[in-house]
Amino acid sequence: MNNFTYYVPVRIHFGKGEISKLHDEITSIGKNVLLVYGGGSIKRIGVYDQVIEQLKDCNVFELGGVDPNPRLKSVEDGALICKENHIDVVLAVGGGSSIDCAKAICAAAYYDGNPWDFIVDSSLIKKALPLVSVLTLSATGSEMDNTAVITNPQTKDKRGFGSRHLFPKVSILDPTYTYSVSKYQTASGVADIMSHTFETYFNDTKDAYLSNEIAISILKTCIKYGKVVYDEPDNYEARANLMWASSLAINGLISCGCGKSWSCHPMEHVLSAYYDVTHGAGLAMLTPKWMTYILDDSTVDKFAEYGIEVWGIDASLPPMEIAKTAIANTEAFFHSLDLPSTFEEIGIPDTSTLEEMAQMAVDSKGGTIKGYRKLEFQDVVNIYHMCQGK
Amino acid sequence: MNNFTYYVPVRIHFGKGEISKLHDEITSIGKNVLLVYGGGSIKRIGVYDQVIEQLKDCNVFELGGVDPNPRLKSVEDGALICKENHIDVVLAVGGGSSIDCAKAICAAAYYDGNPWDFIVDSSLIKKALPLVSVLTLSATGSEMDNTAVITNPQTKDKRGFGSRHLFPKVSILDPTYTYSVSKYQTASGVADIMSHTFETYFNDTKDAYLSNEIAISILKTCIKYGKVVYDEPDNYEARANLMWASSLAINGLISCGCGKSWSCHPMEHVLSAYYDVTHGAGLAMLTPKWMTYILDDSTVDKFAEYGIEVWGIDASLPPMEIAKTAIANTEAFFHSLDLPSTFEEIGIPDTSTLEEMAQMAVDSKGGTIKGYRKLEFQDVVNIYHMCQGK
Repeated sequence: MNNFTYYVPVRIHFGKGEISKLHDEITSIGKNVLLVYGGGSIKRIGVYDQVIEQLKDCNVFELGGVDPNPRLKSVEDGALICKENHIDVVLAVGGGSSIDCAKAICAAAYYDGNPWDFIVDSSLIKKALPLVSVLTLSATGSEMDNTAVITNPQTKDKRGFGSRHLFPKVSILDPTYTYSVSKYQTASGVADIMSHTFETYFNDTKDAYLSNEIAISILKTCIKYGKVVYDEPDNYEARANLMWASSLAINGLISCGCGKSWSCHPMEHVLSAYYDVTHGAGLAMLTPKWMTYILDDSTVDKFAEYGIEVWGIDASLPPMEIAKTAIANTEAFFHSLDLPSTFEEIGIPDTSTLEEMAQMAVDSKGGTIKGYRKLEFQDVVNIYHMCQGK
Repeated sequence: MNNFTYYVPVRIHFGKGEISKLHDEITSIGKNVLLVYGGGSIKRIGVYDQVIEQLKDCNVFELGGVDPNPRLKSVEDGALICKENHIDVVLAVGGGSSIDCAKAICAAAYYDGNPWDFIVDSSLIKKALPLVSVLTLSATGSEMDNTAVITNPQTKDKRGFGSRHLFPKVSILDPTYTYSVSKYQTASGVADIMSHTFETYFNDTKDAYLSNEIAISILKTCIKYGKVVYDEPDNYEARANLMWASSLAINGLISCGCGKSWSCHPMEHVLSAYYDVTHGAGLAMLTPKWMTYILDDSTVDKFAEYGIEVWGIDASLPPMEIAKTAIANTEAFFHSLDLPSTFEEIGIPDTSTLEEMAQMAVDSKGGTIKGYRKLEFQDVVNIYHMCQGK
């Protein structure tokens, strides 16, 4: 079990109607609020009105229209509003995109240069505005961690960054706010939560048993409820368990003692940056290919454990058979949620950029993706090729 | 899934050698330190010297000799030192007793009356000194929560209390510090961790699936490693997993969405207050009796789930048979750690105080213990009677 530091100072208010706590939480910080959100969905489902009601004692400035893969421009726009209006607190209402964008704005409000500087080198973040979030999509876990992902469309670069200054002070998680999320976005969210868990669960540390078991608990939660929410969007139990799973999958809990070994995320971020594909859908496509690609004698025991513990496969079968069945089950599960498994299905029109994207994926990690198994340029090319569905 | 607030703003530094972070953590708060500890064990194992080395830039005041069931007198003594010496930060080094005592001191430093007032009514705690802890015993979880238990020997009252002001700012968890803990204290610690988990796991909420699964993970961790540490005190993997389990069992994580329903703790606190028995040992004695006492048609499914998920009992057996086997396994597990199962074994000399203790147990909870199953005075008497080993 490796040494670790665990620190998650986010106050979570979870459950139906918890928006009623927003007023006191915000006004205990300040009066001048920048409200950050995405498209019109928060207005359509009534969350916007509930938030505005809670902010009736505040001076509210707005930055709407944040993209699903939030762009540098939104960060710059938000920072300008903060600087010009003495914003006390940034309130993100939405999914991970809005919260990620708001995190970057919180840092940019105290940064004088181009925000892309600190996205590339997060040590430049010395201070940030306080952030509060109201979550409307279970996926990225941004509501309970200190990281964000921002896209620079000009350079086709999509980067993750983090800082101890970027934890939300408070996040309000009302599962009913996710009832109206489309089937595709819901399913993509489930794939994202599972991917965050896989990126930690698949590691070579043998002795972080408790963290490993908690990761298994999250994976079982996604599998138990993934199809339920797909079929019954208003199922509170399913929405609630998935929402809580989204937060716990990536706040550091399951990497205590074993670290993280991200593989699929860097390969996916490039797809999103090039083709604006939905992040979770990209992960659902890539993950089973990555699993298949790295399955060998050195990884078979871990995949067999995954098959037995998560999928309940008969432990008396040969490990390689269990492993292959587990990977097939993973792919079939994503398929049952109508998630894509090929470039064609996900809307990537051709593969002319494939090698360029592979290069960018490894470059984003310093030349090699040091995941559960090291991935060089050619490995990424090979995994992308597997997505051509031949 | 019930609404909940989850907030654990404790920075955990976990692993061998993490004491090296103490200097910076303490001095970032202040120079005047009250060091709180128990008997001589921290000197014997060298932790005291390591701590003093880290505090070389500080003015250190000491309160040693905190009892295993920390007493009101220690709290008063500590508060006096804080008030007279402008203490900036209280540093507890030890197990739950030292940390609990330190929490009460942190609150008492800002309280003008008798500390017992706020132990009975924690709303009186408006402010507290910052607390840092260095853990040397895996058991109570006090290192990562905001509660404490203090004994008033004059009234034979042992009370738990909590406040949002009482989270440690930082806790340092080095599993090697627990290598020299005696077999009896180690085993009692395992029983305490399991009891904290049982007191949450056994509830009537059906839909908090993820929290339930995480509770199961903690129980499996205790069972997997309990006998290992008993036989191999220097086993790092086992000590580390149990230490982390102790923190996660009671910091609110597993009660998210299902709440707590404490039953055995109030029954045990009275035993400790009357006879100074080791808390975890008392819990190990009481728990299987309590389980047996409340097992009926309304609880059998939960106990069967416990048997299948935690003990791996064949799910095709009749639920009542699974439940009874699970309870028997629990008792056998505690027995394998040489924990007591009767009043005689635990050192309670006679049962003349039995009804008096039962009355105090229910009185401490307002007349009824509202646990997984409600326990009235007579129920507690009956459960105590089961500990007579007849």
